[in-house]
Formats: sequence, structure tokens, C-alpha cells
Amino acid sequence: NRVHRIAVIPGDGIGKETVPEGVRVLEAAAKRFGFQLQLDDFDFASCDYYARHGRMMPEDWKERIGKHDAIFFGAVGWPDTVPDHVSLWGSLILFRREFDQYVNLRPCKLMPGVPSPLAGRKPGDIDFYVVRENTEGEYSSVGGRMFPGTDREFVIQESIFTRHGTDRILKFAFDLAQKREKKHLTSATKSNGIAITMPYWDERVAEMAKAYPDVRWDKYHIDILTAHFVQNPDRFDVVVASNLFGDILSDLGPACTGTIAIAPSGNINPERTFPSLFEPVHGSAPDIAGKGIANPIGQIWSAAMMLEHLGEVEAGRAIVKAIETVLSEPKLRTGDLKGPANTVTCAKAVADALG
Amino acid sequence: NRVHRIAVIPGDGIGKETVPEGVRVLEAAAKRFGFQLQLDDFDFASCDYYARHGRMMPEDWKERIGKHDAIFFGAVGWPDTVPDHVSLWGSLILFRREFDQYVNLRPCKLMPGVPSPLAGRKPGDIDFYVVRENTEGEYSSVGGRMFPGTDREFVIQESIFTRHGTDRILKFAFDLAQKREKKHLTSATKSNGIAITMPYWDERVAEMAKAYPDVRWDKYHIDILTAHFVQNPDRFDVVVASNLFGDILSDLGPACTGTIAIAPSGNINPERTFPSLFEPVHGSAPDIAGKGIANPIGQIWSAAMMLEHLGEVEAGRAIVKAIETVLSEPKLRTGDLKGPANTVTCAKAVADALG
Ligand SMILES: CC(C)[C@H](C(=O)O)[C@@H](O)C(=O)O
Ligand SMILES: CC(C)[C@H](C(=O)O)[C@@H](O)C(=O)O
Repeated sequence: NRVHRIAVIPGDGIGKETVPEGVRVLEAAAKRFGFQLQLDDFDFASCDYYARHGRMMPEDWKERIGKHDAIFFGAVGWPDTVPDHVSLWGSLILFRREFDQYVNLRPCKLMPGVPSPLAGRKPGDIDFYVVRENTEGEYSSVGGRMFPGTDREFVIQESIFTRHGTDRILKFAFDLAQKREKKHLTSATKSNGIAITMPYWDERVAEMAKAYPDVRWDKYHIDILTAHFVQNPDRFDVVVASNLFGDILSDLGPACTGTIAIAPSGNINPERTFPSLFEPVHGSAPDIAGKGIANPIGQIWSAAMMLEHLGEVEAGRAIVKAIETVLSEPKLRTGDLKGPANTVTCAKAVADALG
Repeated sequence: NRVHRIAVIPGDGIGKETVPEGVRVLEAAAKRFGFQLQLDDFDFASCDYYARHGRMMPEDWKERIGKHDAIFFGAVGWPDTVPDHVSLWGSLILFRREFDQYVNLRPCKLMPGVPSPLAGRKPGDIDFYVVRENTEGEYSSVGGRMFPGTDREFVIQESIFTRHGTDRILKFAFDLAQKREKKHLTSATKSNGIAITMPYWDERVAEMAKAYPDVRWDKYHIDILTAHFVQNPDRFDVVVASNLFGDILSDLGPACTGTIAIAPSGNINPERTFPSLFEPVHGSAPDIAGKGIANPIGQIWSAAMMLEHLGEVEAGRAIVKAIETVLSEPKLRTGDLKGPANTVTCAKAVADALG
């Protein structure tokens, strides 16, 4: 009897609405595919928690969720009460780093029923992965400010690329490309402008490529790469990028496939030394929070990725199929996709479609 | 009798084809609007020059072009012979920094006759400026490598934002927004992730905004901002961004308006202590270089921006009008826009349309 122990963290804003709906679909999948879920709820990693405790998480957060098989996460951030860099660096970015979730895996797929803002693209035309480095690079905690409050004031922040950190994400990306039909890897760089760290990135890509003679690879500077996402999204298969470039490409990619509201992501520790974390790409969306209208599909698709990671491959795929069924049906879509459904009715439809 | 002294630098690749055509239109405008041009050609800032001299520019490059009224530039880079970071940091990036061209001004405008890859957008719908900081930020020369060739190897590069550098670009952007009809400024940030430098940027934006009570302003994190460029490009008026974010947005913006081949830019020293530099947004395009098929419009539009900067406002506007006339005529467009024209015939058509 397979039992999966999941830490459930809704966080802020619409996370509190989408996470319970993701759980609904997880439970339906457990019933249908014969595994068990042990779900533990946590109220930390939220700005509400911050308001009560003056910090985003308790001191012993690592002990409390570090033994779970995975973390099912909503969204974090409520800038009216806690500045974003405080709430994020005190929770999500800490998880990624302390649990060594060095892969941020983000599929971009044009789904049936979701109109693309790009002219003339249809389901099947866009189907690639962004593989984002998730622990170092431009997201660094090293730096500071000098001469504060004067005309000479300046701030410095260091980008740091280690061989350890660079090689392991490249290896993951090349492995993934090798397993796919097109076997095509694209590296995001900016070695012409960011002329210290990015030439190093290029160097490691060229080195890693030698071990994958069957993978066709190319590289584009990030500026023109964003242009190609809009103009030639069908060109991509696996796109590997640094922390910042991956962050950008994994919002832009889903925007090209219609909406970031349905995009999922896995923050993965491939060695399974620590729990991996699954969350939608969208944020806490203060503007629509509390209204029950948020699109739950990004959260539900993240649940599917989590199940695949936990070995429930069949269940994960069935959820993605159920999502496709629901998105194909105008009356089951939420308002952002011009449908009449709300968060709950849309999620129930996915659970029903699971059978 | 108005005389403008221009340093003409074709650089590499298609720059050698588009610059002469830009000059053709400049000369037609001079005749038509009654000013004089003194054009001095320079062969440095090119990889050919590098092949002959082992460096991108002569020692005395600053003396040779520093007294000109402006620099009319093509493109630089030929990665087969010189790595991009060497050619760019030895020429274009040096110009920007040494001539304190701290504003990189890049219009994004959907033009008649240029099909947008976005569904349902027509000329007039997209019309905004990217104002890019052009001398500091993420494009820094401070950093290096440790433990080379070992498993412990790492590289560091520092991003540096000074109050001096940040405030002057924000001031330029707010001034521009104030002069425009919509009076709307958008700041590109990433203060939730890049949590040392970007909160500082936000702080300076909020401070500068106080002096412009009539300008409506907002900010978006760069990831979701790229999504809005695709989904809501009509929302923007003036977008101000750091060096790297501005670089990305000013390729993505023109991609959303159809093609980066027609996009112009001005690298501007507003104080006029040094010459400003005008160049297309596109690069040297090795894949199509030497064939005479490159679209000359980005270069010609850059010529128009240069003339406006030099006080020839009427001539600059007339060139933009002539560009619109030519783009509206299918048979005058180049192959990238599915027309039969080549670099020369397209540019001649613009010169003719000037009358
Ligand atoms: C060629 C490159 C260094 C340059 C930049 O990144 O600034 C280019 O992309 C640009 O936008 O002018
Ligand atoms: C909220 C923010 C810090 C985060 C990031 O930049 O990583 C988000 O944009 C994401 O993509 O997961």
C-alpha cells in the first residue's frame, strides 16, 4: 500500500483558494489509482504568519517539513503588509536553497481551449520545457549598500555561478532532452553583455554537450530568445537557463501559450535527499484574492507533476488528461478564460473527469 | 547654414550593407531640408579591424570620433572569428560607457504593413518607448573566476547600481512620460528575487515619482512584465528599465510589433558632452550577411532619431513618415516581410518617398 506524506502550504492570497482545490483533485486521484495520502497542513510561509510572529516561518521549519515526501505549495506574497523581498526570501527562496531544489522544471504547452495571444498557433504547436537553475546565479544574498542617503550611494549584488551548480542543472537538462523525441536543447545566454559569468555558462554548456552527441543544441542571447518565444515558439524543446533567465522565460513561455494561470512548476531535488516542492507559476494575485474566482488549473497541474515525481506516473498523466478535457469545455472554464466557472466548480470538474 | 559632423561606423556583417543605405536616406534628407552633412567613415569597431590589429579599435579612438556631433553605427560582432564578449566590450559597450551615453532610447511601434505575431493587433495599438539604462547595472566589468579548472571553480560578477546612475535615467524617463499624451510610466523590477539591487531601484523610482505628480506610474516584476508585453502591449507608454532588463524588453517589444529588423535605437548623452550613437536594435546577422537582403529600415529609422537629436526635427519626422509609406507598400518591403525588395531598393524607396 503506497503512502505519500505531503506538507500542504497554501501561503497567501489565491494560494488559500487554489491549494484546497488541488487537494481535492489529489484525493480523487488517490481513490481512483489506489494510493494513500497523508496530508499535513502548515500555516507558515505566509504573510498572515508574519503578522502574528514577525517572521515568515518558525525556527524549526526544516524539521517540521523536511521529512515529508513532497511539499504542495500555493503562493506567497502580500506586498501591502510585507515587502516582497522579505516574504519571498523568508520562505519560497529559502525552501529552494535549503532543500537543494536545484531544478525548477516548467512545462510550456498550448492546451486545447486556451486561446494563444499569438496569431495562428494551435494545440500541439507549442510544447517545451524550461529547465531553470534554482539555487544560485543572479539570485544571490551577497552584496550591500554603501554611503546610504548620500549622493554617492550605491548598491552591489553579486551573481555567482559555481561549476557544481552549473554542471548539475545542465546535466539534468541534457538528460531530459535526450529522453524526448526531438532531442533538442537550447541554452539561454547573454555572454556578449554579461561578459564574466555568461561566457562561463557557455563554456560549461559546450563541455556538457560532448557527453550527449545525440542531442542537437544551440544557444541564444536572452534578448533575442524572448523574441523567438513570440515569433517561433515551435522551435523549442528543452530550454535551459540560469535562475533569472529561467524565471523570465517561464512566465513568457506560458504567456505565449495563453495564460500563466494554468502553468505548473516543480522545484526538484533530483537526489531526493530533501522534499521537492510543487507550485503554480502564478503568484498570490492580491487583486483577485478572496473572491473565489482564481483559475485552479496551475495548482492542479502542479499536483500532477508532484504525483509523477512520487512515482504515481499513471495518476499524474490522468490528471493532465482531465485538465485537457475540462479546458476543452467552455462552460467549465474560469472567468480569466471567459468561462462561467469559479475556482471550486472548475476543480470539481477536473476531479469528476478523473472518473 | 547648419552643418552636422557625423562619424559613420558600419562595423560587421549586415552593418556594412545597411549603413550605406542609411547614409543614402540621410543625404536625401539633407538636400530636402536644407542642412549639410560632413560624413567621416571609420573602419574600426569591427572584427575585420580586429583581424588586422589584434584589437577592436585604435588607441586614439576617443580623439578620432569624440568631437563629432553624432555616431551613425551599424552592428558589431562576428563570433566565428572574435568571441562576442571581446568584440562588444571592445567597441559598442565602450562607446556607451566612455561617451556617457546613459540613455538607450528604443521606440516600439506597430507600423502599417508589418504583421504582428500577436493576434488581432493593428497599427496604433502598440506605441511605447523602452528607456534603458546604458552604462552600469548588470553590465559590469567587476568580477572574476576562482579555482579555474577544478571542481571548486566559480565565477562572480557584480551588478552595480549607483544613485547617480539610477536617478538620471529615471529622470529622463519621467520627463519623457510627462511630455507624452498618456503620461504613464512603468518600471521594470525584480525586487522579490534580486533582493539587494532591485529594491533599491524601486526606492529611487518611488522617490523620483514625487517630483512628477501628473505622471501615473506602476511597476512590474520583469517576469510578468514580459508576459504583459505579449498579452497587453497596449498598456504601455514609457517603460524604464535597468541595463539588462531594458536589453530584453527592447528586443521583445519590437518582436511583438512584428520584427526587430525595423527597430531603431539612440544611445544618448543628454548633456551633449559627448557624441550620441544611433544604431539599429538588430545585430550583425552573420547568417544573411553579404547577400544584400537585409532590411535597412532599422538603420534608416535610427538615422531619423539621429536627426531629431541634432535638431533636425522636421527631417527626422519626414523620414519616419517615408518609412511608413514604404512599409505600407507590399512590393517595397524586403524578404523578411515577404516583399521582393532588397536592401538597396527598399532604402531607395524611402529616399524617394522623402521627395
Ligand atoms: C550586442 C549586445 C552587447 C547589445 C547589448 O546587450 O546591449 C545588444 O543586444 C543591444 O541591445 O544593443
Ligand atoms: C516570487 C518570485 C521570487 C519567484 C522567483 O522569481 O523565483 C517567482 O517569480 C517564480 O517564478 O517562482
